[in-house]
Amino acid sequence: MKKLINDPRDVVSESVEGLVLAHEDILELRTDPLLVVRRGGARPGKVGLVSGGGAGHEPLHAGLVGTGMLDVAVPGAMFTSPTPDQVQPGLAAADGGSGVLVIVKNYTGDVMNFETAVELAEAEGAEVASVLVDDDVAVEGSTFTAGRRGVAGTLAVEKIAGAAAERGDDLASVAAVARRVVSQVRSMGVALVAGTVPHVGRPGFDLGDDEIELGVGIHGEPGRRRVAMAPADAVTDMLLEPVVDDLDLVTGDDVLLFVNGMGGTPLSELAVVYRRARRRLEDRGVRVARSLVGSYVTSLDMQGASVTVLRLDDELLSLWDAPVHTAALRW
Amino acid sequence: MKKLINDPRDVVSESVEGLVLAHEDILELRTDPLLVVRRGGARPGKVGLVSGGGAGHEPLHAGLVGTGMLDVAVPGAMFTSPTPDQVQPGLAAADGGSGVLVIVKNYTGDVMNFETAVELAEAEGAEVASVLVDDDVAVEGSTFTAGRRGVAGTLAVEKIAGAAAERGDDLASVAAVARRVVSQVRSMGVALVAGTVPHVGRPGFDLGDDEIELGVGIHGEPGRRRVAMAPADAVTDMLLEPVVDDLDLVTGDDVLLFVNGMGGTPLSELAVVYRRARRRLEDRGVRVARSLVGSYVTSLDMQGASVTVLRLDDELLSLWDAPVHTAALRW
Repeated sequence: MKKLINDPRDVVSESVEGLVLAHEDILELRTDPLLVVRRGGARPGKVGLVSGGGAGHEPLHAGLVGTGMLDVAVPGAMFTSPTPDQVQPGLAAADGGSGVLVIVKNYTGDVMNFETAVELAEAEGAEVASVLVDDDVAVEGSTFTAGRRGVAGTLAVEKIAGAAAERGDDLASVAAVARRVVSQVRSMGVALVAGTVPHVGRPGFDLGDDEIELGVGIHGEPGRRRVAMAPADAVTDMLLEPVVDDLDLVTGDDVLLFVNGMGGTPLSELAVVYRRARRRLEDRGVRVARSLVGSYVTSLDMQGASVTVLRLDDELLSLWDAPVHTAALRW
Repeated sequence: MKKLINDPRDVVSESVEGLVLAHEDILELRTDPLLVVRRGGARPGKVGLVSGGGAGHEPLHAGLVGTGMLDVAVPGAMFTSPTPDQVQPGLAAADGGSGVLVIVKNYTGDVMNFETAVELAEAEGAEVASVLVDDDVAVEGSTFTAGRRGVAGTLAVEKIAGAAAERGDDLASVAAVARRVVSQVRSMGVALVAGTVPHVGRPGFDLGDDEIELGVGIHGEPGRRRVAMAPADAVTDMLLEPVVDDLDLVTGDDVLLFVNGMGGTPLSELAVVYRRARRRLEDRGVRVARSLVGSYVTSLDMQGASVTVLRLDDELLSLWDAPVHTAALRW
């Protein structure tokens, strides 16, 4: 294993510290417990938005803290849920008096720990709502998960709920629009080469020189099946079709098409995948109204990509378009 | 080799097409020859900015076309300079009647082909100035290059010259500020694992499991020396010190610190490098006034990073801060 890290035990704290230092105009670092907070802290009167989970998926979530998106990110250890004792101060740090929405990716550890943290916060009088993201169509149940996993679609939930909170929606409305995104977003991913967890020191799973893992999760969990390496267009079709089927996309639908890199894949390859997915959607009469191409929801240095489709309506489109100013996403 | 590509002969055109499709609000695709043009074409009265070079360094240059930066990017074949016959239409496409500045990375092929294209354009009456970027302090002369190579510092030249052109500076002024950036920017890179050129099918060079290439170029050219893998802080120091020495940085200087990923390195590792470089600069009394962390000037899927420092003055700072709206860089 060769990585640009120091002691594997310090990689999360050092990486988070570096990210915050590089974006001091947007972010503040809290330690003990480790939190990444929007500069200036909670906004009075605004619904606070919190997300988090195991590290290794950067820029998710810390890189998505800022105006129009998250108020607080709670980074756990590598691929390990933050504890309730870490999440609860995160909820408090986001609370501007109008309640807090917490966005949780569907992994058993996250669900448990965020739930406990919410109970602790509520016991102290906080008003908290939760939304569970489970956009991965690849498998039902997997390592770490009952039901579908939460993957790259989480970014769309955070962006759109963040815009709703920023414009002043109340907690029930922000939670409702977040749930609407969850109901309309689907993803599927592929790994060419597994990522390597620093303190483990070798790739999370082995793939042959001519093999790819179709439907892989963002921790390297097994997918639907291993298949022979194929041209990008064929691989893209294998990712897109289950997503389109699951969403029941029909002619005339407007969508956001998001091609996400897994951390070790260059932009040029993501653009090739995007091109094919776009053409295929257009062939079906689906209009790609908005696009995102880049490595946002990663799995350490995994080589691979995922395809996410969000069906848009006028409100979701306008919230997607609303200004955002974070380390990783801004317009 | 496993890559998300189709026929290796199509990877540049398909990748560029995907990028343009994903950013239709910013970019236009021209074919025959292949060009990426700012949407709406040349701006009357504005100095046009052109850059280009071999593909494989995405998002450079096509991802840096847009408001406040380039007007045209000319992508060659993989790691291969575009021909004069491709560059000349690129110069024409950027020409809004106030002249064109072309920004060339110092590689023998690029220098030759861009020079010839400029001569062709001038013979047809165009007014063109050129700026050569040679920010890589690692070596004097290397594969493809006489003198120092042009690497990640190119982004700073394009950003700052782009801002000067956007505010209405004339050609001589835009060229002068671009040259001032060249004189004040230095970089050095490291490879952990080489990138793989698609039509070659295997990594450009071999590194042992415990070996890194210090001072590597963005085509995998040899660097200063191979050394044993070391913790990120030590590697960062080996990159930063030659940069600081070459720039003669002194206490009280303000700088932009840019940590660039080579394509296969996740953001979390770049943030660890940034943290160390930032601390080391501050230890010397140098103020890191601006920061950029991400994979902007890549070498296919190479694992590694580079450190770039630009000494800032008030004008360079204000041009760096000016609005930019491109696929890869926006604020």
